[in-house]
Formats: sequence, C-alpha cells, structure tokens
Amino acid sequence: MEHKVKKVVLAYSGGLDTSVILRWLQNTYNCEVVTFTADLGQGEELEPARKKAEMFGIKQIFIEDLRETFVKDFVFPMFRANALYEGQYLLGTSIARPLIAQRQIEIAEMVGADAVAHGATGKGNDQVRFELGYYALNPNIRVIAPWREWDLTSRTKLIEYAETNQIPITKDKRGEAPFSVDANLLHSSSEGKLLEDPAIGPDEIVYQRTISPEAAPDVATEISIDFLHGDAVGLNGEALSPATILTRLNEYGKANGIGRLDLVENRFVGMKSRGVYETPGGTILLAAHRGIESITLDREAGHLKDSIMPRYAELIYNGFWFSPERRMLQALIDTSQASVTGRVMLKLYKGNVIVTGRESPHSLYNTRMVTFEDDAGAYNQQDAAGFIKLNALRLRLGASIGRRGGAL
Amino acid sequence: MEHKVKKVVLAYSGGLDTSVILRWLQNTYNCEVVTFTADLGQGEELEPARKKAEMFGIKQIFIEDLRETFVKDFVFPMFRANALYEGQYLLGTSIARPLIAQRQIEIAEMVGADAVAHGATGKGNDQVRFELGYYALNPNIRVIAPWREWDLTSRTKLIEYAETNQIPITKDKRGEAPFSVDANLLHSSSEGKLLEDPAIGPDEIVYQRTISPEAAPDVATEISIDFLHGDAVGLNGEALSPATILTRLNEYGKANGIGRLDLVENRFVGMKSRGVYETPGGTILLAAHRGIESITLDREAGHLKDSIMPRYAELIYNGFWFSPERRMLQALIDTSQASVTGRVMLKLYKGNVIVTGRESPHSLYNTRMVTFEDDAGAYNQQDAAGFIKLNALRLRLGASIGRRGGAL
Amino acid sequence: MEHKVKKVVLAYSGGLDTSVILRWLQNTYNCEVVTFTADLGQGEELEPARKKAEMFGIKQIFIEDLRETFVKDFVFPMFRANALYEGQYLLGTSIARPLIAQRQIEIAEMVGADAVAHGATGKGNDQVRFELGYYALNPNIRVIAPWREWDLTSRTKLIEYAETNQIPITKDKRGEAPFSVDANLLHSSSEGKLLEDPAIGPDEIVYQRTISPEAAPDVATEISIDFLHGDAVGLNGEALSPATILTRLNEYGKANGIGRLDLVENRFVGMKSRGVYETPGGTILLAAHRGIESITLDREAGHLKDSIMPRYAELIYNGFWFSPERRMLQALIDTSQASVTGRVMLKLYKGNVIVTGRESPHSLYNTRMVTFEDDAGAYNQQDAAGFIKLNALRLRLGASIGRRGGAL
Amino acid sequence: MEHKVKKVVLAYSGGLDTSVILRWLQNTYNCEVVTFTADLGQGEELEPARKKAEMFGIKQIFIEDLRETFVKDFVFPMFRANALYEGQYLLGTSIARPLIAQRQIEIAEMVGADAVAHGATGKGNDQVRFELGYYALNPNIRVIAPWREWDLTSRTKLIEYAETNQIPITKDKRGEAPFSVDANLLHSSSEGKLLEDPAIGPDEIVYQRTISPEAAPDVATEISIDFLHGDAVGLNGEALSPATILTRLNEYGKANGIGRLDLVENRFVGMKSRGVYETPGGTILLAAHRGIESITLDREAGHLKDSIMPRYAELIYNGFWFSPERRMLQALIDTSQASVTGRVMLKLYKGNVIVTGRESPHSLYNTRMVTFEDDAGAYNQQDAAGFIKLNALRLRLGASIGRRGGAL
Repeated sequence: MEHKVKKVVLAYSGGLDTSVILRWLQNTYNCEVVTFTADLGQGEELEPARKKAEMFGIKQIFIEDLRETFVKDFVFPMFRANALYEGQYLLGTSIARPLIAQRQIEIAEMVGADAVAHGATGKGNDQVRFELGYYALNPNIRVIAPWREWDLTSRTKLIEYAETNQIPITKDKRGEAPFSVDANLLHSSSEGKLLEDPAIGPDEIVYQRTISPEAAPDVATEISIDFLHGDAVGLNGEALSPATILTRLNEYGKANGIGRLDLVENRFVGMKSRGVYETPGGTILLAAHRGIESITLDREAGHLKDSIMPRYAELIYNGFWFSPERRMLQALIDTSQASVTGRVMLKLYKGNVIVTGRESPHSLYNTRMVTFEDDAGAYNQQDAAGFIKLNALRLRLGASIGRRGGAL
Repeated sequence: MEHKVKKVVLAYSGGLDTSVILRWLQNTYNCEVVTFTADLGQGEELEPARKKAEMFGIKQIFIEDLRETFVKDFVFPMFRANALYEGQYLLGTSIARPLIAQRQIEIAEMVGADAVAHGATGKGNDQVRFELGYYALNPNIRVIAPWREWDLTSRTKLIEYAETNQIPITKDKRGEAPFSVDANLLHSSSEGKLLEDPAIGPDEIVYQRTISPEAAPDVATEISIDFLHGDAVGLNGEALSPATILTRLNEYGKANGIGRLDLVENRFVGMKSRGVYETPGGTILLAAHRGIESITLDREAGHLKDSIMPRYAELIYNGFWFSPERRMLQALIDTSQASVTGRVMLKLYKGNVIVTGRESPHSLYNTRMVTFEDDAGAYNQQDAAGFIKLNALRLRLGASIGRRGGAL
Repeated sequence: MEHKVKKVVLAYSGGLDTSVILRWLQNTYNCEVVTFTADLGQGEELEPARKKAEMFGIKQIFIEDLRETFVKDFVFPMFRANALYEGQYLLGTSIARPLIAQRQIEIAEMVGADAVAHGATGKGNDQVRFELGYYALNPNIRVIAPWREWDLTSRTKLIEYAETNQIPITKDKRGEAPFSVDANLLHSSSEGKLLEDPAIGPDEIVYQRTISPEAAPDVATEISIDFLHGDAVGLNGEALSPATILTRLNEYGKANGIGRLDLVENRFVGMKSRGVYETPGGTILLAAHRGIESITLDREAGHLKDSIMPRYAELIYNGFWFSPERRMLQALIDTSQASVTGRVMLKLYKGNVIVTGRESPHSLYNTRMVTFEDDAGAYNQQDAAGFIKLNALRLRLGASIGRRGGAL
Repeated sequence: MEHKVKKVVLAYSGGLDTSVILRWLQNTYNCEVVTFTADLGQGEELEPARKKAEMFGIKQIFIEDLRETFVKDFVFPMFRANALYEGQYLLGTSIARPLIAQRQIEIAEMVGADAVAHGATGKGNDQVRFELGYYALNPNIRVIAPWREWDLTSRTKLIEYAETNQIPITKDKRGEAPFSVDANLLHSSSEGKLLEDPAIGPDEIVYQRTISPEAAPDVATEISIDFLHGDAVGLNGEALSPATILTRLNEYGKANGIGRLDLVENRFVGMKSRGVYETPGGTILLAAHRGIESITLDREAGHLKDSIMPRYAELIYNGFWFSPERRMLQALIDTSQASVTGRVMLKLYKGNVIVTGRESPHSLYNTRMVTFEDDAGAYNQQDAAGFIKLNALRLRLGASIGRRGGAL
C-alpha cells in the first residue's frame, strides 16, 4: 500500500461483486467507504443499492439519475461524429465510463475522499477508462482497483469471501454466470464464458435488449426524427428530451430486432475479445444522423469528419474522453454541425433501419443542379471538361515520361 | 475541334444512347468508329451490340467478357480495404470505370485509334472516371465526350436525331425512362427523375437486383465464405473463381433482400445527388471480410487501414484508380492481408447479414488471454496498473497545473 | 460574354499589368471599374495607384491599409497550425489572397458592383485562390479573369495594347522582367523566366527581402518573442500589434539572412513550378511558435495538430480558406492554443534561427519527472514494465503464431 | 524473479554502467552472460569491450560492425519518409534500437540464451524500443531491465557497487557526468542534468559531432548527392556504400556547423524531456531527399507521404519498428520511391543546408507547362475556368443558402 487511505468513493452497483469490493475495501484499507450508484439507464432498480449500502454501515450514499446528462453530454456529442470503433461498434460501454469517473471525482472532492475505487477487472478496457478519467480530473487521487489487487481470483474464492463476510448472495449469483453483462441507456454488452469461442454464434439467451429479427413484426414501423445542430430533438414530430428520445428509440429498436452486433474487437490492453452488443436506439440514431448530414453537410466537411472519425472512436474506446485531443476533435466535429438540422424519415423492419426520406431548411441538395432535365443554366457542362483536364494534368505528365496508369 | 480525329474507340453498350453517339461521331468527326462492348456482369446480352454495330458499318467490333478480370483485379483489391464512400456506398459504379477505360486505351493502341469516346454525361462522376483513366494510361489520347459537346440537350432532340439517322428505337426507349440505371456484377445503381426528391423513398419498381426484405423468405439462409490473403476463394467449402463467387453471393443477396441503399451523396463535380444502389453480393462480402479480419488482423494494422479507408474510397469514387496515390494505398492495404485467411459463417435473413462465426489458422484471438477464468499466467493483471499510469501521466501533469479533464 | 457587366471591382496594384487590365475592362465590357488597392505590406507606395486610377477616369477608388487585419486574422491563425506546404513553404502568397477577395466582395456589395476582376494568370494558383474566395463569399458574383480571356498572350502584345491605349509605361517595364515577384508583409516570392531551370540555383539579384547568410553579421542577434494563446504579442518584452511584430521580425530576419527558400512545388492546377521565397519574419515566428508549443502543448494535442497540418496547409495553398473544412480544422487548432502562452528566446545568425530558451506559466515540462536524479517518487519506474508489456502484447501474440517482427 | 535465468545476452558497451549491469546480472541471477557489442558508428573503440568482457569471465563475446546494415536497412528506409518527430527530430536514437534488439534476439537464439538485458533506464524511451523489439521478434524471451529492478538508484550507489565488485572505474566516470550521451552514425544526443532547464540554451561543451556555425568556415562547401529509388548512392559523383555516404556527410556537416537541434520533446512514457541532438549528415540528407522528391514525385504521392509521415515518425520514436503498422506504412513509402532518382546539388554554409539544384531523368518538372512564355498549347488556360467553377460549386451552393465564406 502506497499510503493509508482515509475515505474512498466506490462505484457501487449493489450487486454481489461490488458488494464484495465494498467489504474488501473496509477490511483491507480500514477506511470509510462512500458509495455512488448512478442510473445511466441500465434498467435496474437503484433503491436496493441504498439498502445494501446501509447494511454495510455506509454513511454517505449517493444515488443519482444521470440519464439526461449521459445522453446530452456524452452520447449525443459522440453521435455527432458517427463514431464506430473498428467500423462497427457504437461504443456503448466506453461512453458511459467517463461520466461515472467524473461524478466519482466530484463526489470525492465534495466529501473529502482521498481515493476512488471501481469494479472493473485487470484484463479489460473499463479499468483504463475509469482511471484515465480519474487522473485527468484529479491528478492526485488514489485509485483502488480491487480486481488487480486482491487474491479472489476465482468465483469460488469470491463466494467464500462473501459468505465469510455476511454478504447476501442471491441464488442466481451462486453459480457462475454464463456470460457477463454491462448495460446503460445506449446499449447492453455481453461477453465471456459462453461467448468465448468466436467460431460459434451467440445463443439467443444472450440478448437482453432486443428481440430477434425473426421474432419482430412482419409489418414495418415508420418513424421520423428531428435534428437540431446535429442532435436529435424530436420523434414523430414531438419535441423530447435527449434521454426520452433515446429511450423511445430503444423501444422501437427492440421491437423491430434492431441493433445486434456480434464482434471480435481489439482491446486497448492488447488482446482480442468477443463481445455481443445490443444498441437498438443508437443504431437507429446513427442511420438517421447520417441521413440528415447527407443533405445538410458540405462534402468536404463530411469527408473531413469521416477521416478523423476512426481516431475519435479509438480515443473514446481507449478511455481518453477527458483528453486534449478528444476536445480538439470535438471542436472540429461540433463546428460541422451548425446546419445539421431537419427531419429524417425511417422505416424499421426486422433488423433493418431504412432511411426513406430527409428534409431540411438548410439542405444543400439542389434538384436544379443535379437534374437530367434542362437545368436552366445552373450548371455548365463545359466546366467539367476543364475540371477533368486539370485534374488529369499531373497524371498525363507522369504518363508522358513513362509512368503510365499512375505508376510511380 | 482541336484537330481531326481519324479513328475513335467508343465504349458501346448497344443501347439507344450510345447508338446515337456512334452515329454522331461518324457524322460529326467523319471518322472511323471502333466499338468496345464489355460484359462486366451487367446482365445484358452482348451479341445484339455486335449486330447493331455492324448495322452502322463498324468494321472493328470488340466484345469481351471481362467479369473475372473485373472481380479479381478491381473489386477484390477494393474490398481488401473495406472501402465505403461516405460511410455507406460500396462504389459499384466507380470501380467498373477504370477497367473500361483501360481496355479502351489498349484497344485504341491495338487498332491505331487516336481517340476514345464514352457516353457519360457532363454532370456526373463517370465522365471524370473514364477520362482520368484514359489520360493516365495514354497522355496523348484525344477524348470525345459527346454529351458535353453536342446540342442534343433533351430527350426529344435525341429521339429526333435517332429517327433522322435511321437508328432503331425500341418502344420502351421512346418515352423518358423514369430513372437511369447502371449495372455490373457488383451492383446496380439507379438515379434521376423519379428519384430526384430525397424526401421521398424510392418506389419498389426501382429495384432490379434484389427482392425486398419483406418479400424475402421467412427462414434464414446460412452460408460460409473462405478467404485467402484477404480475397474470397470459396463458398460453402467449394473453391470458386472470383466472378463465380460474386455471382453466387449476388443470388444469395437478392433472394434475401440484402444490399439496398438509398443515399444522398456528394459528387466529385460538386453537387449532391441521390442514388439508389443494390449491392447484394458485395454487402455480404464486406461483412464477411470484416469478420475474417476481426480475428486475423493485428489491432494497429486494422486501425491504420480504417484511418486511410475514407481517402482510398474517395480516390476510387473520384476516378483516381490509376494514380500514384491509389497504388501507394493499395500497397499498404495488400501488405496487411498476408494472414487474412480463414472461414466466415454467415446468416442471411430479410436484409440482414449476420456473421455467426469466424475461424482461421492465423487467428490472433487467444482464449487463454481473454478468459475470465484462470488464464494460467498468460496475462499479468499488474501490468495494467503500469500501463494505465503511464498513459495517464501527461493527463495528470496537465491536471496538476490546472488543466483538468483534458482541458487545453 | 455570359451577360452584360455593369460595374466591376478590380484588384488594382497601379502597375502596368493591372493598368492594362483596367483599360481592357473598360474597353471590353464597357463597364464602370472600381479599383481596390490594398496595403498588405508589399512595400510599395499606394498613392500612385490613386493617381493612375484617376487618370483612367475611375470614380470609386478604394485604397486601404490592411496590414493589421492581414496579420491578425490570416497570418496568425495559420501560424497557430505551424503550416508548411510540402514540408517547407510558409504560404506567404496563398494567405494574402483570401483577404483581397473578401474586401473585393465587400466593396462590390457596398458599391453595387456585379463583377470582380483580378490580374492572376491562367496557369497559376492565385486565380483559384481569388475565385474560390469570391464564390464562397458571393455565389452570384461575376468573375472576370482577363488573363484567361484576352488575346494579349505575349509581353509584346501587352506593351502594344498599353501604347495604343495611352497607358504610361515606365522604362523598366518595357523589357521583359527576368522574373515575376509577389510580396506582402509575410513574404516575397519570385518565379518564372530566370528561375525556370530547377537545376540552377537562383542568382542573388532575385532576393528582395533578405541579405544573404554570407553578407549577414558575424555576430548573432538575440531576441525574445512573447506568445499569448498561440499568437505573438510581444518582442523583446515589448507588447506590440500583430503587424508591428511581423514587421520587426522581418527586419531581424532580413539583417541575418534568414528565411530564404528555393523550392520546386506542386500547383493545384496540376504542374510543378519553381519558386524562390523569402519569409524572414515568418521563419523566425515558426521556430518560436514550435518552441513555445514544445513546453505548453500536450503530446497528443501536438501530434494531432501535426497529423492534420499537411491537409490544413494544402487547403490554404489550394485557395480553400473560406471553406467549411478549413473552418473545422481552425476550430481544432484554435482549441489547442489555450495555454500556448509564454516566452521564447532565440538567436539569429547567418541564416540560422536557434531557439535558446522557452518559459511559460503553463509549462508541462516537469524537471522532477524527467530528472536522472532522485525524483522523490514522482515517477514509478515499475510502471514502465507494465506499460511495455501491454504495448507489446499484440506483437507477442502475433509472434507466437509465426508472425515475428511485426510480420503481417 | 519470475523464473530462473540460465543465459542472458546483454547489450554491452564496455562502459561503466553496462559493466556494472554485467556483474549485477552474474550476481543476481547467477547466470551466464553473453555480451553483444555493436559498432553503429558511435565513434568508440570496440576492442576494449572485449578485454573487459573477458575480465568478467565472459565466454561468448559478440563484437560486430553493423554500420552498413544500420544505414542500409534502418536509416535509409526511414529517410525515404522524410521522417521528423514532432516536426523537428530526426530520430537518431530511435532508429538504432531495433537493430540492436534484433541482433540480441538472433544471438540469443544462436547461443541458446533464454533472456536479454539492456542498460536503458526506466524513465526513457529506449527501454520501450528495446523491449518492443525483443518481444516482437521472440514472444517468449525473458527481458531483464536492471535499471528498473535494482536498488542502485544513485550514482554513489553505482560507484560503490563497482568498487565492491572490482569493476575498474576510469577517473572521468567517478564524478557525475554533466549530461548523458548516446551516439551512432546518424547522430549524437545529449540530455539530463546540465540540460534540464529548457529556458537555458546548451553550453557549447555539449556538442560532440559538430562545430558551431560561428566556428565554421566563411566559405561555403558545395556538394552533390546522387539518389536511386529514394536512397543516396553517391557523393560528388562517386558511388559509395550507405555507411560511407553517411560518414562523409557527417564530416561535411560537422565542418559546416550543420545539424544541431535543441528540443523539448514528448516521450512515449508520458513526460516532456529536453534533448540536444546533432545530426550533421542526416540533416543534409533530409534536405537533399526532399530536393530530389520535389522534381520526381507526383503531387498526390508526396502529399500522401506527408500526411502519414507524422504517424510513421511517431511509430519509430515509440519503438514500433517491428510492427505490422510500420511495415504497412513502409510498403506505402517504398512504393512511392520508384522514380526518386537523380542528383541534388547543395551548398553547406555555417549551419545552412541550401539546395541549389536538382536534376533527374524522371523529372516531372516541365518547363513548357509552367513557362510564362508561349507554351505552344501545352496548357489550355480555359481549362482553369472550368476547374475553378467546379471546385467552387459546393461553396457557391452553400453561400446561396446563407452559408457564406464557407460557414457551416
């Protein structure tokens, strides 16, 4: 132990694992524990966490509904970038960690705690995301990562510790879970055990947030989403708060079998892992956002966004939300969204999200310009000849000295 | 007219438009016309083109089946990059143009022609793609783009010209087509007229290559694709040629309502346009390729590929296939595919392409490394502490002088 | 002529070429000409331009000192990016064009002109820079580029036209200039004729703004520059305006033989050209800005800036200052400069700019962290072991299946 | 200790520090030590290292002259990229580490060693570079980094250990060195102690490889360098081996005060550090390589290279030479160099490297195209009008709906 810990703010779910951590912190560090439980839309009751914390003698218990903040200040900024990690993953877990870290640090400063603790393991990305957030917000905070410190290296030992320490164990937690789950308003992720062989598709029981495309209705659902400066602000013509919109989109997505992803991805800590993700509302939102951008965003603005997107997504995946480089990229992205305003119509059908229309007062789409019909002089086809000639000039100069076909 | 044209190689489909062009070239330039008609999998008979050409008195008629070359040397290299233009478009039209341009130039050199001609309009991307290809391969070639030169600026005038010049007009070509179509083995694209309002979804009649997800079977189809060095080499365990694989994947995709895209995109010539694309086999192939890469490609190799992909896709879209920069990027991409070998299992269902398994002799996925179970020392969780500490160091140094949370 | 021109705002230097253009506009378009002459620090008297314009019967003559605007709103934002085109060129000509274009459009709107005109040739970049600026600021403006329109294709014809039209010709303009010059407060560029062979170094007579390193003093000059949020605000401890700082730095640079560059570069219009540039003050400023960034900018912030810099420089070179993508990149860059504040000490000696010291209240340089001496626990060397282990993990996994040394 | 070490290959310089390490390895691990001493052009006799190693009872002593390999396979590939870390640093130390690591692993496999050891400290980049190289080449190798393991945390303790263990200490090593030096054929770097305050310029005694610009001759030296496929192959018309060329360029650079750099840089391990570098020959080589590229490399090829260069340089700095991503980027870079062949003339004068001429059989510079004179129709100025119009189209469309000047 580097130095004595006096008071630690624990990210506490109320479940078995973080309850063991809570007791272990008390036992090991002989310190006061402050619990922090956040509603990020994971779909669990929070009040049981209070009861349990009280049972452990916790005096300072923080239980907060952060859903609106989560969507408004984390999910939406990220969606402005159309962020996809490794071309596919909507970053549902990654984007929640910085908010939890931020509140833990704020609470630590409020209650005079000198440490924070989390329940992420030593093999995953979440430990990195939590701790980079902690350190970026408070460089002197002491971080406790029990999974990297203790010797409870098997489920059996954990259960034993729980029993020895009078921690209640619900029946379903006694055996090993067939896979591990993380959830919030944006998504649910499942990984481990049952899912460890990437050659075998996930069993239907893995899915928590969506019905299967097969089970979805045979008739499509049609919706519209309104955007203002790149953010969703309304659904089917009704203005709604950020978290409400995402909640409703989740319902639409769930019902229509939308947003499942079975992925082998690369962790920041170095190995590949397999995750099964469900992002019903997010999947719809991404399609819609691309749809509204398609008519409102300038070509080069869009291409520039696309070119930096992989790096932006990587930063969030790796835990660098609170970093200068993420803030710089965000400034670039946010600048681009000034006119990303309008309505997108979508059809949801058995796993498909189909953009059926887009309209905007700021549309750059110009029928007169593009029409095959007479365009009344909007576009001079002769210009194309010169445009091509000069774009070809360097290639012709190359070819004329023997470098044909773009040979170097 | 810059100088007299003696002999021109025309990209000739046999349809009304290129027949009018053929005659117009004869009339206007008083030159010999050589026709070149390629089978790129557009799904039309080629022999009628020969008949028609003969009818125009053409002496040198080239009709070639280029499907294998098209898939092997153009489509597959592009798919190694997971190329998507503007995040969505699989570049089906763009990738065919360089091959046509290349053959036209080769034929021109073979027959001693001093010019080439194409039937692309002055508002689109294809004129650019053809002509950049021509010039890169032969810097001195004379390029004739009738749509930019003549005064047949309306359908009526075109029909009149055809009638005046004894060009047969099939009944369905007399009226204006409700939209314009381009097709090859990779895709079919539709645009114009009926599709000009991006607020309104495309009518079902637009689709040529796919049935709708709604019309697709209620039971999923399961297939597997084998990859070798990044290219598909087998289907359901059977080794097949490139064009055969793509043909079969198109059948699977078509039957399962896969690969439709309704997009507003940005043209290189400067305006936005709306296209409806059908890429049934390509959509399956992309998912499968990402699947096999997910277990065989190193993380940073994959991220590097992702970071240059938008530029690579843009180059192909803009017509720079035969350019030094495309060749350089291709060298980077091809280098990455050395071990992208193995099998991907997929489920096709009503518009969905779902990867259900991947396996490879070169898999970098290591169960022992990632398992929640005891990993027998494969991974030392203590390493993560140091890893995080040093990744956080610069953020902590910043925070310690007042730049909290990554403030700059 | 597309339509009749009523009133045109001409970027007018007062020299022979733009005087011929002035008269040619009057003769050709039979329109009113408004002259606009700006002092961007080119080092020429402006009042003669007024005299001349009056002589041509011009009624609305705009002569403006834009030096402060030029440096504050164009040069300084660009220097925040450390912009270098093709690794070397400080973009002295490129950065001046947007300001001229902007003022021409503002004046056109003020005086009710329907057209603007410039004196750039049809082979260079400047025509592009002017016209992209015009169109971005006023999409309906009529642009007249006499060099692309008239038939004065040789010096002889131009002189003849001048004589025929009573345009006074100073003796030194009668013969052909041995090279062509553009100058402003940031730089002087020379190109053409005498300089056309890139195998031969420029003659000393080409240089206008600098003495040679050989001719510079044998004793170094020491100066300091103060920065605030990335911009130079003081020199040798004295607070000065942007244009004053650049003027003084030019004097320092000139006297010490600093800022010469003999370059073959690639023009946007497609060919290579050879330019000789002198950017005395800018060369010092770049070194100083890199110096202050080196202690105040976060590593990843700096690397992100470096990674987008080539694209940013290319945009400015190509004339896209007034574009969405330049504005987005500027937002990213400006965000990065919040703490780029402090002082840089430099030594100037015979062509060398040597940073000799940097200090800042926001310095991220931490002696305790970096020292070889005992650091009192600031840095735990054990962390490096874990850091390396996890950074190596993917490489080890690759090597363990036969991909040694990063083989793919 | 994880497991018993039997035989370790130590990167051994023969100096005090690595001699202490040698003895410490024998004492601590009770293992056989194999020494490896490489001549990378650091300018020290190697035979004394053999004597010393024998004195320690070493049986297997490897002393190798790797200068040609170093320049040919490491320095030259890197210079093809014009690599500069953080815009300025020529990566002299970084590029030497992978070669040492490679040979250590090869020797370990030859002699049946199970471990390797190096003398880099726990705060620097070199430990990372060595160890990433080791692991990438042999995933199972045991790595010993004494500076991170032992308790010789001060110079005094090190000296005591040397005395106790009968390790000879030359007089000058008894006191603390005022700074620490690393050198090879490409450069010399100095850092630490005397240099720790970045506000104060380095004392002249720091410089090892160059005389000062002030001390350099008053008359310029003129040289020429011949390139073939991007690599230097001749000097002043004489064909020479890679190492010979670099050696001669070092002499030219040294004599003319060229290649000094005083830099605050960002280490991969997280903190800023200050280094003073001397890269006399490399500085000349970079200027020359840019010079030959300027006439032989296609514009977009060059811009693509420039855009990936910062990442390439970062990879080398961070120690990822043996990585898939470096190999991919190298493939891109090497592809670009096919025609980078020709001669560059340079003038060296008191710290300045001035390109005075370039010529190549593959030059893309075309006087006829660029001339202000009559170009005989090589370039049609009318093309520029169309080129600009279409490049402006999107900006005009934006401006026409109120987004003037590239507003978003």
